[in-house]
Amino acid sequence: MKTFEFWYDFGSTATYLAWTQLAALEAATGAKAVWKPMLLGAVFQAAGNQSPANIPAKGKYIFADFARFAKRYGVTLNRNPYFPINTLLLMRIAIVLQTKGDPRFSEYCKAVFNAIWVESLNMNDAVIAAQVIHRAGFDAQALIALASEQSTKDALKAATQAAVDRGIFGAPTFFVGEQMFWGQDRMDFVKEALQ
Amino acid sequence: MKTFEFWYDFGSTATYLAWTQLAALEAATGAKAVWKPMLLGAVFQAAGNQSPANIPAKGKYIFADFARFAKRYGVTLNRNPYFPINTLLLMRIAIVLQTKGDPRFSEYCKAVFNAIWVESLNMNDAVIAAQVIHRAGFDAQALIALASEQSTKDALKAATQAAVDRGIFGAPTFFVGEQMFWGQDRMDFVKEALQ
Repeated sequence: MKTFEFWYDFGSTATYLAWTQLAALEAATGAKAVWKPMLLGAVFQAAGNQSPANIPAKGKYIFADFARFAKRYGVTLNRNPYFPINTLLLMRIAIVLQTKGDPRFSEYCKAVFNAIWVESLNMNDAVIAAQVIHRAGFDAQALIALASEQSTKDALKAATQAAVDRGIFGAPTFFVGEQMFWGQDRMDFVKEALQ
Repeated sequence: MKTFEFWYDFGSTATYLAWTQLAALEAATGAKAVWKPMLLGAVFQAAGNQSPANIPAKGKYIFADFARFAKRYGVTLNRNPYFPINTLLLMRIAIVLQTKGDPRFSEYCKAVFNAIWVESLNMNDAVIAAQVIHRAGFDAQALIALASEQSTKDALKAATQAAVDRGIFGAPTFFVGEQMFWGQDRMDFVKEALQ
């Protein structure tokens, strides 16, 4: 089966937008996304890049740009007043579920993306994050415990380093073989590369 | 007549790509581009932004991205070994021609864009720049003399400051009324806004 890599961090607006279009991309190409976690803040730091939100004029503009795509896609996107969200815990839990091969990993992703980008929740708050995870049908306390194990911390560090080593500097990033595509606005090129 | 603003600097790869699609955008919308010069390096500095080329991983990626668009558009784009090009003289001459309302302004733009992005010439070199301008049918020496007048220098400074004041942080940037669009990859949104 054809696959492509989808490098993600829940805290990235563009990654949320890409996620809303991922199933359609898979359906159109018959290819399956391989989800690759990374901690975007650490990728920015390693790559000498920064969030567009850190550049005042760009930060002022970029949400309007994302909102245009949300409208085009017909999906909800709300500005999260707690942005930027520190996704360390959320990404560690993601890696726990992926490592276990948990069949409900996609349910977790849906719950987290929606909590941040639709419900505008403060996912920086561990209590609120736990509520969201619990509400989605997971044992939040167990997952948080697993997330704080050294092996999980190391796994996310290694995954993030792998992103940097691969030449990634932002999110989302796609790979089709060795071809890299950066941005939710490049999914049409990903599609072409898969066809 | 409907118009839209096209903020440009010849040294920007994305601006070159946008320029190759500008006539089609005008034809499709019946709107006319109002060319707005700016010195991109100064805009970057004022906005706290930087060229993607300055971020190693992004610099390594970005030309492949531009090349994909060039292929999609069916236009030639060559990597210029002298990049980044200091466009101070070239932008000053542009403002001279625009201020005069020279009907051959578009010929000048074509000559400069092609010299940088198709012919890969070293347009940092004033002698080569003069040859390109002369070859395009202009009195290069007269234009260079006008470009070095204080009023021209001031005009480009003012134009660049106007870009910064408008919230611009990169090139090309389009405005349809007060709606801002950044990037050659947003011309479809510009088109929608004009329709």
